Amino acid sequence: MYLSGEIHSDWRDVIRNGCEKRSLPVTFTSPNTSHEDSDDCANIILGMEKTRKNWDVKSSLLNSVRTKLLVDKADLVVVRFGPKYRQWNAAFDAGYASALVKPLVTVHPPELSHMLKEVNAAAKAICEEPEQVVNLIDYTLTGTLQRDSSFTSSETTWDCRARRTSRICVC
Amino acid sequence: MYLSGEIHSDWRDVIRNGCEKRSLPVTFTSPNTSHEDSDDCANIILGMEKTRKNWDVKSSLLNSVRTKLLVDKADLVVVRFGPKYRQWNAAFDAGYASALVKPLVTVHPPELSHMLKEVNAAAKAICEEPEQVVNLIDYTLTGTLQRDSSFTSSETTWDCRARRTSRICVC
Amino acid sequence: MYLSGEIHSDWRDVIRNGCEKRSLPVTFTSPNTSHEDSDDCANIILGMEKTRKNWDVKSSLLNSVRTKLLVDKADLVVVRFGPKYRQWNAAFDAGYASALVKPLVTVHPPELSHMLKEVNAAAKAICEEPEQVVNLIDYTLTGTLQRDSSFTSSETTWDCRARRTSRICVC
Amino acid sequence: MYLSGEIHSDWRDVIRNGCEKRSLPVTFTSPNTSHEDSDDCANIILGMEKTRKNWDVKSSLLNSVRTKLLVDKADLVVVRFGPKYRQWNAAFDAGYASALVKPLVTVHPPELSHMLKEVNAAAKAICEEPEQVVNLIDYTLTGTLQRDSSFTSSETTWDCRARRTSRICVC
Amino acid sequence: MYLSGEIHSDWRDVIRNGCEKRSLPVTFTSPNTSHEDSDDCANIILGMEKTRKNWDVKSSLLNSVRTKLLVDKADLVVVRFGPKYRQWNAAFDAGYASALVKPLVTVHPPELSHMLKEVNAAAKAICEEPEQVVNLIDYTLTGTLQRDSSFTSSETTWDCRARRTSRICVC
Amino acid sequence: MYLSGEIHSDWRDVIRNGCEKRSLPVTFTSPNTSHEDSDDCANIILGMEKTRKNWDVKSSLLNSVRTKLLVDKADLVVVRFGPKYRQWNAAFDAGYASALVKPLVTVHPPELSHMLKEVNAAAKAICEEPEQVVNLIDYTLTGTLQRDSSFTSSETTWDCRARRTSRICVC
Amino acid sequence: MYLSGEIHSDWRDVIRNGCEKRSLPVTFTSPNTSHEDSDDCANIILGMEKTRKNWDVKSSLLNSVRTKLLVDKADLVVVRFGPKYRQWNAAFDAGYASALVKPLVTVHPPELSHMLKEVNAAAKAICEEPEQVVNLIDYTLTGTLQRDSSFTSSETTWDCRARRTSRICVC
Amino acid sequence: MYLSGEIHSDWRDVIRNGCEKRSLPVTFTSPNTSHEDSDDCANIILGMEKTRKNWDVKSSLLNSVRTKLLVDKADLVVVRFGPKYRQWNAAFDAGYASALVKPLVTVHPPELSHMLKEVNAAAKAICEEPEQVVNLIDYTLTGTLQRDSSFTSSETTWDCRARRTSRICVC
Repeated sequence: MYLSGEIHSDWRDVIRNGCEKRSLPVTFTSPNTSHEDSDDCANIILGMEKTRKNWDVKSSLLNSVRTKLLVDKADLVVVRFGPKYRQWNAAFDAGYASALVKPLVTVHPPELSHMLKEVNAAAKAICEEPEQVVNLIDYTLTGTLQRDSSFTSSETTWDCRARRTSRICVC
Repeated sequence: MYLSGEIHSDWRDVIRNGCEKRSLPVTFTSPNTSHEDSDDCANIILGMEKTRKNWDVKSSLLNSVRTKLLVDKADLVVVRFGPKYRQWNAAFDAGYASALVKPLVTVHPPELSHMLKEVNAAAKAICEEPEQVVNLIDYTLTGTLQRDSSFTSSETTWDCRARRTSRICVC
Repeated sequence: MYLSGEIHSDWRDVIRNGCEKRSLPVTFTSPNTSHEDSDDCANIILGMEKTRKNWDVKSSLLNSVRTKLLVDKADLVVVRFGPKYRQWNAAFDAGYASALVKPLVTVHPPELSHMLKEVNAAAKAICEEPEQVVNLIDYTLTGTLQRDSSFTSSETTWDCRARRTSRICVC
Repeated sequence: MYLSGEIHSDWRDVIRNGCEKRSLPVTFTSPNTSHEDSDDCANIILGMEKTRKNWDVKSSLLNSVRTKLLVDKADLVVVRFGPKYRQWNAAFDAGYASALVKPLVTVHPPELSHMLKEVNAAAKAICEEPEQVVNLIDYTLTGTLQRDSSFTSSETTWDCRARRTSRICVC
Repeated sequence: MYLSGEIHSDWRDVIRNGCEKRSLPVTFTSPNTSHEDSDDCANIILGMEKTRKNWDVKSSLLNSVRTKLLVDKADLVVVRFGPKYRQWNAAFDAGYASALVKPLVTVHPPELSHMLKEVNAAAKAICEEPEQVVNLIDYTLTGTLQRDSSFTSSETTWDCRARRTSRICVC
Repeated sequence: MYLSGEIHSDWRDVIRNGCEKRSLPVTFTSPNTSHEDSDDCANIILGMEKTRKNWDVKSSLLNSVRTKLLVDKADLVVVRFGPKYRQWNAAFDAGYASALVKPLVTVHPPELSHMLKEVNAAAKAICEEPEQVVNLIDYTLTGTLQRDSSFTSSETTWDCRARRTSRICVC
Repeated sequence: MYLSGEIHSDWRDVIRNGCEKRSLPVTFTSPNTSHEDSDDCANIILGMEKTRKNWDVKSSLLNSVRTKLLVDKADLVVVRFGPKYRQWNAAFDAGYASALVKPLVTVHPPELSHMLKEVNAAAKAICEEPEQVVNLIDYTLTGTLQRDSSFTSSETTWDCRARRTSRICVC
Repeated sequence: MYLSGEIHSDWRDVIRNGCEKRSLPVTFTSPNTSHEDSDDCANIILGMEKTRKNWDVKSSLLNSVRTKLLVDKADLVVVRFGPKYRQWNAAFDAGYASALVKPLVTVHPPELSHMLKEVNAAAKAICEEPEQVVNLIDYTLTGTLQRDSSFTSSETTWDCRARRTSRICVC
């Protein structure tokens, strides 16, 4: 399971810990999440570049060894978008996973919905919070589904509002 | 080994238990067989939808994460069709497996034969009862074949009727 | 463009003629739509079979030469489901196309929505009427989109009801 | 040749016209560049959705029929990033093309270099201006290369500054 | 359409002429059918070999340039087996085509049926005479099926014997 | 490692035992080598067929579940041809493996060389005796090569005759 | 047909003209054969680099757009090696073509045979002179084979020396 | 991890030992590095050849069983080029790995840069010394990056010279 996307919140830990608590048989991989190291890696290991473009591409090429391998081997790719930064790498990973026919799950606040529509159209599920990803993984792997006690069969009623749990909101 | 198809009889258990009794080295996977959960999963986890079509597609998209992954990894795909319901998901799985060049085995009562002809044309074997799937798996994996004592070489006689066992019928 | 599905209405002609009228640069292919011929073809050409199962599979195998080739070469696969018959071949084609990552469009009356949820989850678009397929093809190929005169930008208003045309209903 | 990216400047025309002037044997394709139509297409053709997320994903799914087909058939994919908007669809297309091992060319102002480093690491060439894409296509197809008269063999001198043309800047 | 197999009868001409008479839009390809030339080609062009094994493999390698390319591009592969010679190249071509998921049609006298069972299990149709291949191609491409006047719907009667035409025999 | 071909000599045991004696880390797989069982399997498990052709194809289809899976997973495919029988299944397996770009090794007496030239042209090595396959596997896996004491570097002398060991003959 | 390799002799013209004289239906493609232009292209079009390594890689990346596309579309890849320079690009192209299962033909003087053994092991034919490539293409496409008048069937005699033409030498 | 290239220095041991010292979870594979054995293997096992070309190709074909399998299974392919010999096999391996979309790392002295530009354009990283490969593997697998104590964030300063370590030089 590959976790791509922003590195400025603890969303990866939320998913990782949530799955661990439920003892789900799942392994998480991610790109190098040290911003500084992923910027400089190739230049430190292989020698410096003088122009910013070369500096950046050189390290990104090296990082892509890790990124592509992990996406290629993933059974599920989760990509998170946040309100800050342009995160073109996250959208790039989503497109890359999509062309490899990997199941894709996106996580983002509802207000990004319109901007992310092409990415979401390629997704199997669109989450708002990392906790939903834990539930989703749990269901997919073990069939566990946490219904409210008041919840009745989808066959008998379709009034969704009443059954909606507090932490899950449709944008 | 992936078991697709109707969820209203115990055919999966027959195959699973049959193979377990013979200690065959085989693992079975299947879609989520809780009808209600597979209908509602995405709406419970990700938020409700107001229209039935959106409700259905949303959960099916999430279920397909599981289904496709398991078919992709299967060495053999067994699909069962029964006399009730339209089971388009089962035929869809059969077509999906077929395009991936996965060996396909169908299980259905003989009277469905004409309606299933396109699916059967893509199958390696057409069974009527789940017990036949157990025999088929046993033979394929270990070479075990339960001949009647009166059975003689296929080279010397081709009178099939006499040798036919009681529980295996041609439709 | 491959048209799969039921052969008891003129839906293929509606799509074909609609696209022809607009001079869309598109070629349609389909399975053999003569019910009788597609049932008997291999037995007439290659020799008869005595059991129904063999008869059926033999002709279906021959038909699959045509079907698979045309799906393999299609840029878009349209599958129609109707209220009658079980149409497992249509769902099989949809699964086959889906595994080949072909864009899939389904056409069916809204009341089949729940039964078709797994197939629809793999579709790029879900239509109710063949005329919608013509519009969809027109838009996809040429960008032509027939807005009502009262239609305003999607950026300014999201009240969908008011703008809904009469012949397009959400199930 | 597929042109992906922002739709608020005339960069596609610059490339198209530039190649036409030189009579290069090349065909350009692009996503639907009418912002409004690409937002609303599926809702107009297939029926309205009430929530923004569903509205967006429905149209994007339909647009992806066009987008993916054209990228799949492209010999070269050019993606342009501008200073405005988050353009996740452009980065998604770049990732998609990259996984299909399509040669990728990016076009963007130099100050976006750091943000685009992962995308650029997958590119065969990084341009700043659409005119460079014309030169690049011309060279790739016909071998035409416009050297300054003062330009001498790369074998004899490596002082790049002196030979740098005015309209091509390294960021 | 690729025609593989024995070169000692005129079966290729029968198929070719039959399809030409009916103006079927089909192109036939085949390996080099000059026995002597296909044995010696590489040795004449590239230099002689002293041992028979090297002589044979050298020419076969060169012939495989043609064979593989034509099978790779074929929409249908027809392989004929006769009573003489061991024709391992024909069976090799059949296996090769099968792994590429090309539709395979075999042509052979009924008495070879047992020996060819593995090849036939991979075939879409098993013919006895090349004329059947012409009928099969005609049906697959144009839907033309030559029924006897006495032939009635497969839905109403399954007594195959009565309807069997004289020139089509089940082995 | 998949061993295909004739079942009337103990060549598979020679290879298996030879590799076991040298403790080579290798697993061997093969088709069902009980001639009678592989002929009758599907008819016993799934029901009898009245015509020989149907009988044969039905069992071969079932056997192909095993065969194809094992070839698909093999790292090396060894196919043996003997002087008796037509062994079209062996040549079919060789073609199948070849299209999957599996390394192929053939084993056959030298006098079959001309008849097998197309198969041999696709092979990485052509053996006469199963013992050679053991040596070949040993070398490929561990680098072990049994030189005669009189053998000197290939760099210094090219007089091959003198160094030829007694049990390895060029046909 | 893709022609890769050294650019210091007229071997491409020999093949091109030879095939043109015989009116063979064949199109030739090649990398950019202007040494200077292929060295400098990206630096001229996209901006200069200060270090030789960056300069070289930048242009090679751009050249690879052309090279890879043409190899991907080639039906036959011809690679020529000469006695001068290290020509790593030619060997790289050969490996690239080989992994794509493209038929590969090498052309080189006999004394390079030992150094090129890994490349030659992946080739369908090993030529010494470009004229042989013309003969090879002619035979592969049209079956034309220029035998000496004194040449007799390969079946009757295997004394290769006597029949060897003067311009084709085994190293 | 596959290590291809010259066999006359101990570079493979440097990488292997370096990774072992740091307890990196990595397995190394390589072609047979005994020059003499890899030249003679097939001739010793399968019988001698009289001409050098046949001798060489026969052994190389056998060696390719090992080489291709290991490259196919590698997550990273490292190819080293030295100042001596023409090493066409190393460049062939690089091209082969590149077409399989394997991440490629090259190792060579800076003065070979121009000659290796096509190979380097396909590489994710270009090293000069095998120690750099160890650092690169360590970073890619574990994220470990050895910064100088004086090293500050890539965000704040781009003066690369000052931070360049002594043992890593840009050519």
